[in-house]
Amino acid sequence: MPIKRDVRRELMSAAIGLSLTTGFDETTVDEIARAAGVARRTFFRYFRSKEDAIFPDHDACLRRVIEFLEAASPLRSPLQVIADAAGIVLDMYVKDPRTAVRRYELTRRVPALREWEIAATSRYQRAFSEFMDGRCREGDREAFRLRHEVAAAAVVAAHNHVLRGWLRAGGEGDARAQLTAAMTEVTQALQAWVDGRTTGDEEPPDEVVIVLTTRRAPLWRIAEEIETVTGRSPS
Amino acid sequence: MPIKRDVRRELMSAAIGLSLTTGFDETTVDEIARAAGVARRTFFRYFRSKEDAIFPDHDACLRRVIEFLEAASPLRSPLQVIADAAGIVLDMYVKDPRTAVRRYELTRRVPALREWEIAATSRYQRAFSEFMDGRCREGDREAFRLRHEVAAAAVVAAHNHVLRGWLRAGGEGDARAQLTAAMTEVTQALQAWVDGRTTGDEEPPDEVVIVLTTRRAPLWRIAEEIETVTGRSPS
Repeated sequence: MPIKRDVRRELMSAAIGLSLTTGFDETTVDEIARAAGVARRTFFRYFRSKEDAIFPDHDACLRRVIEFLEAASPLRSPLQVIADAAGIVLDMYVKDPRTAVRRYELTRRVPALREWEIAATSRYQRAFSEFMDGRCREGDREAFRLRHEVAAAAVVAAHNHVLRGWLRAGGEGDARAQLTAAMTEVTQALQAWVDGRTTGDEEPPDEVVIVLTTRRAPLWRIAEEIETVTGRSPS
Repeated sequence: MPIKRDVRRELMSAAIGLSLTTGFDETTVDEIARAAGVARRTFFRYFRSKEDAIFPDHDACLRRVIEFLEAASPLRSPLQVIADAAGIVLDMYVKDPRTAVRRYELTRRVPALREWEIAATSRYQRAFSEFMDGRCREGDREAFRLRHEVAAAAVVAAHNHVLRGWLRAGGEGDARAQLTAAMTEVTQALQAWVDGRTTGDEEPPDEVVIVLTTRRAPLWRIAEEIETVTGRSPS
């Protein structure tokens, strides 16, 4: 029984391989198609450009990220949600370490490809801050936009930090666990400011719990307060 | 007495103007040169590409930023220094509001130019985090790199937030004052984590001040503590 070909991945692999040996600018679409054993027009059925063939997964990954954000419970902290969403992006790299490491080698050599990846990353960042804006009461949105943009940038920077470390280590090590640790640090550092709480107003656990809140407080924050004081784990 | 021509700015202005009326892809270098009244080869004496002509100031601005960072007193908090350095980038836009607003109109229409600007921005971000790494004791550098990268991303995000607001308002308003306010928020939110302090260890002012520190504490932090408790203004 013949194994079903994955032409898309073969083209990607050829694009990365040829660019590493011959140079990215020097490699033509015709050569990539030939190396993958398909016609030039087949290449353009899968990809818009050579850059596109080097990074074939960002569009689909961004869609997954947006779906994840849209499906997130309104009871969860938006900062926690975007920190989790960064895991979807990391998974895209981690599921195929060999390709990720080869591509990293290539982006380090070719500034245009590095910039292409930076632009792709900026789309995740934008999706994160727009999600946080959307989860914010309309009247507070303007006042909180700075915090949302900074939080989105911080989460993306933490993701890139972990990803780069893992790529430099040749794709060895538990990137997922490192991401969790980094996101814990970042969310702890930013949570109070991003939520609009002043620091130090977390109450100690007690037998009787009174949660004081205002009509304006978002539901997830009330839920989070209750979870914190009762020691229940978050949803 | 003839006024000295600024061919560089005339070429930039022609590049932006023609791209706004005809489209960026549709505008040729020849047309830009002709509009500025110079020869094609003169264009390439000033710029490597059309993109370069649209954003002529980022290279020089990055050099100014790096000089500023290198000249900063080791007694100052690195986070405060990069927050101030972001002001140099903002000034590049603010000193010529009309060009900044026209260019913004253009980058909103042309994704390739938006990506070009995102890549330029990433170079400032990298300079910021490398500066913070450099100001960190070698033994602590690995452990603090996440914080430096997040801090650099946060400062750039805050800068972009203020810049975008000012551009959307047509270049009206005091962008400098808005940047100062935004940076105050961001540095207050991040300072303790970025410095490796736990929150809540700022001492209240008193008559007699005892600053406890360790051999490992960087000099600027000790200076900052003394400034904080004695109410002296930072250098």
